[in-house]
Amino acid sequence: MAMETVSTARAFGGTQGVYRHASTATGTPMTFSVFVPPHDEGAKLPVLWYLSGLTCTHANVTDKGEYRRACVDHGIVFIAPDTSPRGDGVPDDEAYDFGQGAGFYVDATQAPWDTHFNMRRYVEDELPALIAAEFPVADLTRQAITGHSMGGHGALTIGLRNPDRFKSVSAFAPIVAPCQCPWGEKALGGYLGSDRAAWRAYDAVAMIEDGARLPELLVDQGEDDAFLAEQLKPELLEAACRDAGIDLTLRMRAGYDHSYYFISTFMRDHIAWHAERLKA
Amino acid sequence: MAMETVSTARAFGGTQGVYRHASTATGTPMTFSVFVPPHDEGAKLPVLWYLSGLTCTHANVTDKGEYRRACVDHGIVFIAPDTSPRGDGVPDDEAYDFGQGAGFYVDATQAPWDTHFNMRRYVEDELPALIAAEFPVADLTRQAITGHSMGGHGALTIGLRNPDRFKSVSAFAPIVAPCQCPWGEKALGGYLGSDRAAWRAYDAVAMIEDGARLPELLVDQGEDDAFLAEQLKPELLEAACRDAGIDLTLRMRAGYDHSYYFISTFMRDHIAWHAERLKA
Repeated sequence: MAMETVSTARAFGGTQGVYRHASTATGTPMTFSVFVPPHDEGAKLPVLWYLSGLTCTHANVTDKGEYRRACVDHGIVFIAPDTSPRGDGVPDDEAYDFGQGAGFYVDATQAPWDTHFNMRRYVEDELPALIAAEFPVADLTRQAITGHSMGGHGALTIGLRNPDRFKSVSAFAPIVAPCQCPWGEKALGGYLGSDRAAWRAYDAVAMIEDGARLPELLVDQGEDDAFLAEQLKPELLEAACRDAGIDLTLRMRAGYDHSYYFISTFMRDHIAWHAERLKA
Repeated sequence: MAMETVSTARAFGGTQGVYRHASTATGTPMTFSVFVPPHDEGAKLPVLWYLSGLTCTHANVTDKGEYRRACVDHGIVFIAPDTSPRGDGVPDDEAYDFGQGAGFYVDATQAPWDTHFNMRRYVEDELPALIAAEFPVADLTRQAITGHSMGGHGALTIGLRNPDRFKSVSAFAPIVAPCQCPWGEKALGGYLGSDRAAWRAYDAVAMIEDGARLPELLVDQGEDDAFLAEQLKPELLEAACRDAGIDLTLRMRAGYDHSYYFISTFMRDHIAWHAERLKA
C-alpha cells in the first residue's frame, strides 16, 4: 500500500497533491487527489470526501470544482478518489456508463468485473486507511462525504451504510435510485447480476426503505439538468426521506445543468454546510 | 463576422458562454468564451480581458481560472480569446512554443505565418468590435486586461500600446521581455524576422524603454515557477518601470508554480484590483 506522490502544487496557501498507490481492493494502481489547507504544525483537520461521476477521474473536480478557497476558509482536507480501476489488464466496456470510469461504488460479484471492480471497499475501507497512515493532518474521527451524479449515489449510499462515520452527507445531482433508472439498471445488473434484491444495498432510496437512516441530507439539483427526469429523479429521494423522517434539504436550482459550472457554483455552500457539522 | 453560440451554461447566477466566429484578421474560425454575470435588464458592465499562455485555448481559464464568483461580486464581464488561429489550413510547428497555440499576440510579417497569425489585430481590433456588436451588456468604455505567461506578455504589450483604452493592466507570471528570453526570441524571430528592431513593438520592457507609459501595473509571480529565471525575468520589468516612473506592484509569491493553481489563487485579487479602477 506504499504511496507515491504524482505531483504537488501550492494553491490558496495550501497544497494540492495527486497521489498513486497499489490498491489491494482493485488490484490496480489507483490515483487520487488531496488538498490540505494551510494549518499549524501538528494540527488535525476534518476531511471531506468527494466522489466523482461517470467518465471522471480525480482530475475533474480537482481542476474545476473550485473547492480550495472554501476548504481554506473552513480548515478542511478535501479528498477526491478515482471512479473505477483502470489499465490494460482491467475489463472495460465501450459505453461511457459502464466499466472503466463507471465503477458505481460497488463491489462487483459478476465476472469479469469481480476481480477489479471493488470500489465500495476501496472507498470505504482501503483509501481511508491509507489516508490515516500517510496524512497525519487528516482527522478521520471527523469525516463528511459528498459527490456528483454517480458519485452522489456513492456519497449517499456510503453515508447511509456508515451513519456513525460521517458527520454529514450531501450530493450534487445524485443518482438517488439506481434500481429505477437506466444508468443504474445497466451498472448494477452488470456488476451484481440479475437478482435485483442484491441491488438494494447500493440504492439510496431502497436503503432508506429498508431501514437505513441519517438525521439529514443536503442535495442540490439543477432544473435544466438533461438527466433529471430519466436518471436522477430526486422526487424518489424526497418521498423516501419524508416517509423515513430524514430531514432532506433538496434545492432545485433554476437554469443549472449537470456540469461543473453547476457544481462549482454551489460547492462553497456545501463545504460551509459540512464545516458546521464537522465542527459541531 | 457572424457569431455562433457553441455552448452556454448557468454559472454563479450568470452565463458562461463559448462562441465562434469567422475572423477576418486570422482568416479562420476563432473560438472565445464570455462570462456575463447576473445584471439588470439594460445594464452596461465593464469588461476584463484575459489572454492565455502557450498551449492554451479559451478553455483553460474557463475551466480552471475560478474567476466567476469575483466577476459576479464586482459586476464584470470576463472574456477569454484563443491564443492563435487553428485548423488544417493553418501553418504549425511541432514545438509547443511556436505556431498553433503560441500566437504571441503579434501580427506576423514572415511567410508562412503572415497569412493567419494576426493575433494583435484580432485581439486589439476585431474581437472588441464583435463584442460591442453582439454583447450589448459589455461597456467597452470601461475595459481592463490581464493574462498569464505569453498572455501576460499580451496583456502588457496591448495595454502599453493602448493606454487610453484600458483602465488597468495586470498579469500573472508574464513574459516581460520576449527580446531577452528563448521563448520570445524564437517566436518573434519566426513571426517577425531577424531584424530585432521590429521586435521591440511586442516587448513590454522595450516598449517602456522606448517611451510607452501606463500609470501603474500589477504583476503576481510564483517564486517556484520553473520558467522564472530563464523566460519570465520580472526583474527586467521592475527596472524598466523604475526608470520610467511606472508604479509597478510586483508580488513574488513563495511556493507557487506556473500553473492554474497559482493563477486561480490570485485571480480574485486581480479582479478586485481591476474593479476598483474600472469603477473609479
